[in-house]
Amino acid sequence: MSILFLSYDERAPRWLPHLEAAMPGREIQVWPEVEDLARVRYAVVCQPPAGVLKQCPNLEAVFSMWAGIDHLKSDPERPPEIPVVRMVERGLSTGMCEYVTMQVLFHHRRMLDYREQQARAEWKPLPLVPAWTRTVGIMGFGELGQLAAEKLVGLELQVAGWSRSPKSMDGVACYHGEDGLDAFLARSEILVCLLPLTEATRGVLNAQLFAKLPRGACLINAARGGHLVEADLLAALDSGQLDSASLDVFDPEPLPSDHPFWSHPRIVLTPHVAAGTLPETASQSIAANIARHERGEPFDAVVDFSLGY
Amino acid sequence: MSILFLSYDERAPRWLPHLEAAMPGREIQVWPEVEDLARVRYAVVCQPPAGVLKQCPNLEAVFSMWAGIDHLKSDPERPPEIPVVRMVERGLSTGMCEYVTMQVLFHHRRMLDYREQQARAEWKPLPLVPAWTRTVGIMGFGELGQLAAEKLVGLELQVAGWSRSPKSMDGVACYHGEDGLDAFLARSEILVCLLPLTEATRGVLNAQLFAKLPRGACLINAARGGHLVEADLLAALDSGQLDSASLDVFDPEPLPSDHPFWSHPRIVLTPHVAAGTLPETASQSIAANIARHERGEPFDAVVDFSLGY
Repeated sequence: MSILFLSYDERAPRWLPHLEAAMPGREIQVWPEVEDLARVRYAVVCQPPAGVLKQCPNLEAVFSMWAGIDHLKSDPERPPEIPVVRMVERGLSTGMCEYVTMQVLFHHRRMLDYREQQARAEWKPLPLVPAWTRTVGIMGFGELGQLAAEKLVGLELQVAGWSRSPKSMDGVACYHGEDGLDAFLARSEILVCLLPLTEATRGVLNAQLFAKLPRGACLINAARGGHLVEADLLAALDSGQLDSASLDVFDPEPLPSDHPFWSHPRIVLTPHVAAGTLPETASQSIAANIARHERGEPFDAVVDFSLGY
Repeated sequence: MSILFLSYDERAPRWLPHLEAAMPGREIQVWPEVEDLARVRYAVVCQPPAGVLKQCPNLEAVFSMWAGIDHLKSDPERPPEIPVVRMVERGLSTGMCEYVTMQVLFHHRRMLDYREQQARAEWKPLPLVPAWTRTVGIMGFGELGQLAAEKLVGLELQVAGWSRSPKSMDGVACYHGEDGLDAFLARSEILVCLLPLTEATRGVLNAQLFAKLPRGACLINAARGGHLVEADLLAALDSGQLDSASLDVFDPEPLPSDHPFWSHPRIVLTPHVAAGTLPETASQSIAANIARHERGEPFDAVVDFSLGY
C-alpha cells in the first residue's frame, strides 16, 4: 500500500527524501507519474488537481501539507467520506511562533517609529511600556495560538486568547464565542489573527471589529487574506484607530504590485512566509500519524468540515 | 538615616513616588536641595556630579540607576571604599530580553530584506531557516545574557554564550575566556553583544573579531558604543562579511546627525532604548537590597572594580 504525493507544483524533489526517510520501505507514487492508484492508501496533498483523489479506491486519509485547508478546494470532487488531516508539525509551529513573537515585539517596541526616525537621522527615545502592562490578544486559539501565547507570556506580556469554543491556559485570559468577543477586543492593544478561514470568519477583520479595539491598536494577520476587509484597514490606519499592521497573507496572492499596501508607511508586509511546512519535520509528523492509525488509534488533527477546520 | 537621590537631570519627579512607596517612612533627600549630607546612608545615582558623594560621611552604598557603571566616571572623587551596586531589576531585564529577542528574530527572519522588497513592491519569499539550525551567540553571559538566552532557547534557536569566567546553562553551549572565543565566534551567525564596557572589552567588536564570524553574520550591539570600532563595522558590511547590524548604543550619544550609520541600509538603529530602568520596579529592587544589608546580609550585585563590572 503506497503513498500518493499530489501537489500542484514541483515540490516533490524537496519532499521525497524526507518521506522516504520517515517511512522506509513504503512505496511513494508521485503524481502525475503514478503506477497504480489502487495501491494508494494515503495521499499527501497541496492544491490537489481535480478528480485524482476519487480515482483512489483504497484511500484512507488525505494529509494536507498546510495548516489551513482552503487549498483543498482545487479538487471539488474530493471524496467527502475520506478523513482530511491538517498539518501539525514542528517546522510550522516554530515558524509561526517566531513570526508572531517578532511582529508583536516590533509593534510593542515601536520599531516602525524608530525606523522612520532613523530615516530622518532623528535621535528621540520614545517612552518604554513595560511588557506586563502591554496587552496582546490572539484571535484563534488552537495549537498555533497557544504555542505563540506561551512565548509571549514568557516575555511577560499580558496575553488573552479568543476562540469559538472555550479554552483555558495558565497565565492567559481566555475568551470565547460571540459573547466574549467585545471584552477580548477592548483589551487588545496588539491583535493577532490566527483564525481558520471559514464562512464564519471571512471578512471578520473589518471596521466594526477595529472600532472595538483600543484606539491606536496594532493588527497582525498571519492567518488568511480572506479574513481582512482591505478598505476598512486602510481607513482605520488613516483615522488613527489603528496605529499599524503587519500582514503576511493576502487575497489574492501574490499581492498585485500596484496594491496600496505595498507603499503604506504603517504596514509591514511579508509575502506569506510567517510559517512554512518543513518537509523533514512534516514527513516525521505524517509518519507518526500513519503509525497511530495503523495501530488502530484515531488520526491526530482530523478536520471537522462542519466547523471548517 | 536617609537616601540621597543624585542625578544629573530632572529624573527625581519620576522616581520619588516609587522610592517612597518602596521604603515608606524613610527620608529621601534630592540633590541639590539637600538638608544634611551627614544623614545620608545610601545614594541612588546617575552620572553623579563630582564631589558630592565624598561629602557624605555615613554613606554605606551607592546604587547605580543603570546596569552599566561607566556613568560613575562623572564623579572622579567618588570614595572608592564605598560599595557600588549595579542595577538588577525586572524592568531592565524584561526590556533587554524583548530587545534581544526582537532583533535576533528580525535578522533570523530576514526582515531587512523583506522591508527592502516591500519598498520595491516585490513578492519574493526567501528560504525559511528552521530555528534549530540557526546559531545565536551571546557575548557577555551575566544576568541579562542568560535571561535573553532562555527566551531564545524557548524559540528553539541554537544558543551559545561566551563569558570571561566559566558559566553553564541547560540547552546553551557555554564558552569562556580567550581560549573559548574563536570557537564561539565561528558558530555564531547572529552575535549579540551584552558585555560590560571595561578596558578589556573596549573596541572588542572590530575587524579581527568580525573575520572570525561565519560570512554574512549579523551583529546586535545592546551593550555600549565603546565596544564597537565603527569603521570596522562599515567595512565588514561593505565587504559582505557582515550582512547587517542592529545598534542601540553609540559613542558619543546622541549619535551625530551626519553619522553614516543613520542612512546605512543594513543598519537598524535605535537611540539607546533597548532597556531602561523602570523607577517602580527599580525602587523595589533597591528597597529589597537595602533590607538585605540591614539584616546583615551582603548586597546583591556589588561591582568588582578589579573586573570593571
